[in-house]
Amino acid sequence: MSLLVVGTVAFDEIETPHGRSGRILGGAATYVGLAASQIINDIRLSAVVGDDFPRDYMGIFTGRGIDTSGISVVPGEKSFYWSGRYHDNMNIRDTLCTELNVLAGFKPVLPPAYRDSEYLMLGNLTPSIQRSVIQQMDKRPRLICMDTMNFWMDTAWDDLLDVISMVDVLAVNEEEARQLSGEYSLLLAARKIHTMGPDFVIVKRGEHGAMLFSGDEKFYVPAMPLETVADPTGAGDSFAGGFMGYIARSGDKGFESMKNAIIYGTVLASFSVEKFGTERLLEISGEDIEKRLIEFVKMMSFSL
Amino acid sequence: MSLLVVGTVAFDEIETPHGRSGRILGGAATYVGLAASQIINDIRLSAVVGDDFPRDYMGIFTGRGIDTSGISVVPGEKSFYWSGRYHDNMNIRDTLCTELNVLAGFKPVLPPAYRDSEYLMLGNLTPSIQRSVIQQMDKRPRLICMDTMNFWMDTAWDDLLDVISMVDVLAVNEEEARQLSGEYSLLLAARKIHTMGPDFVIVKRGEHGAMLFSGDEKFYVPAMPLETVADPTGAGDSFAGGFMGYIARSGDKGFESMKNAIIYGTVLASFSVEKFGTERLLEISGEDIEKRLIEFVKMMSFSL
Repeated sequence: MSLLVVGTVAFDEIETPHGRSGRILGGAATYVGLAASQIINDIRLSAVVGDDFPRDYMGIFTGRGIDTSGISVVPGEKSFYWSGRYHDNMNIRDTLCTELNVLAGFKPVLPPAYRDSEYLMLGNLTPSIQRSVIQQMDKRPRLICMDTMNFWMDTAWDDLLDVISMVDVLAVNEEEARQLSGEYSLLLAARKIHTMGPDFVIVKRGEHGAMLFSGDEKFYVPAMPLETVADPTGAGDSFAGGFMGYIARSGDKGFESMKNAIIYGTVLASFSVEKFGTERLLEISGEDIEKRLIEFVKMMSFSL
Repeated sequence: MSLLVVGTVAFDEIETPHGRSGRILGGAATYVGLAASQIINDIRLSAVVGDDFPRDYMGIFTGRGIDTSGISVVPGEKSFYWSGRYHDNMNIRDTLCTELNVLAGFKPVLPPAYRDSEYLMLGNLTPSIQRSVIQQMDKRPRLICMDTMNFWMDTAWDDLLDVISMVDVLAVNEEEARQLSGEYSLLLAARKIHTMGPDFVIVKRGEHGAMLFSGDEKFYVPAMPLETVADPTGAGDSFAGGFMGYIARSGDKGFESMKNAIIYGTVLASFSVEKFGTERLLEISGEDIEKRLIEFVKMMSFSL
């Protein structure tokens, strides 16, 4: 099954109590794609970079079988750049610098070969851009998942609601779920978001795990306990990659399958944060994932 | 099986975005005892109150079959009083007033009939007082669980370590686990706390659930999702009451039994916060608990 990922491919520069990354490969679509590539083969990226984007980095994607024909390289422009510093507890970060560069003019045009993708992950982007991607598809994908953020709730409310009404799964964090719904209880927030369109609502809670809601059904998972968190950047996107990878592989959109997808997302996110940037996502094998899945299942199981 | 609970029985006065409680029954031992009384019969309270403590309140305990012969009433003194105000998000609270009153001189003397208790829950108190209770027991209880707080780490470190070395289960929150161990990772924190004595470490995470550690085993549960949280006061103590109630009823100290106890703790805590003070703990029935246990199990279950 094919998965189209639309989002940022960028340079990140990260500082944590464990060290500094220097300028490395980052971006939401990068993490989603690399995490999903641990589970499925047919992944297509749509993004934009400047001509400063190294061939080596492009090779990281193609080396994992990811289609990069939808990554446009804009001559004479620079790639999106973000730098940030994490505090001691790793839950708070300060953005040191954001240079939109080529992202400011990003209007993704899907290559024809992308337009039949069966699964679509819309990374956090301007809602109207997310919508334009849906509109370019030959037919509606079997499942569309979108990420968004508070910024669009403040600046592009109507467009945001319009896109939300078009997707199956909305993946947001706690604050975003609350702001979007006006409800503090995440149970009530999810219920309200269902009425906006999405049959499934995922609430990402970082080190506290994730929640999945659909109608009256709910599923809560904790995050994997880790000895060290080297760099939380990309955890949510790796989660989304693991989630969409599992759904695309299983082809099953039922609630039971979604639960397993949540567990895959949790496991991929747990690897992602163990080293800086995408390093750990690139070195793990299917066996590592299998082992951690077993550990996770064990940690969650009981017989009351 | 018999459970001895030592801790505060007090007046609370609580303000939340949902309203004001007025002066109501509070205290750690109160919540532990009332929650446990939903599961087992033989509960003994050791606490101290002033002669301002209403007979009606004492009747709440005896009405639920809880032995109050170990609650000493000090003539001419006032009961421990705490008042606090919760912020909108209910996770942060300001203490408005703490009057130790009779608690300042609390030196529990266990009635002879208490000294054979098989299970012992030591609420958060001065470590030397917690130790004196252990020393008054005829023989070592089958299981001792203790709660503590940062304050004792700052002011009574040696005594605290001494008591910790004497117990089976330490139940603390995330910050306390980190301060006690000097480790940020809760996985490493639990490992270090094991070396201090306790075979079991519970990390209470409030609305994010709880974690249980023992050697290489771990078990994580989320909190129950609720539509409304009226008053978080006593959630951790209700958790402890549900936990100890289950262990005392089952008589089984193995890790699998402990997992179930964690689930009972989670469920009792979820009821506790739905109304002000102890109101909800007092009105629920075994059937309500059963229903919520089923809901909880459903929310946690999957078949990967």
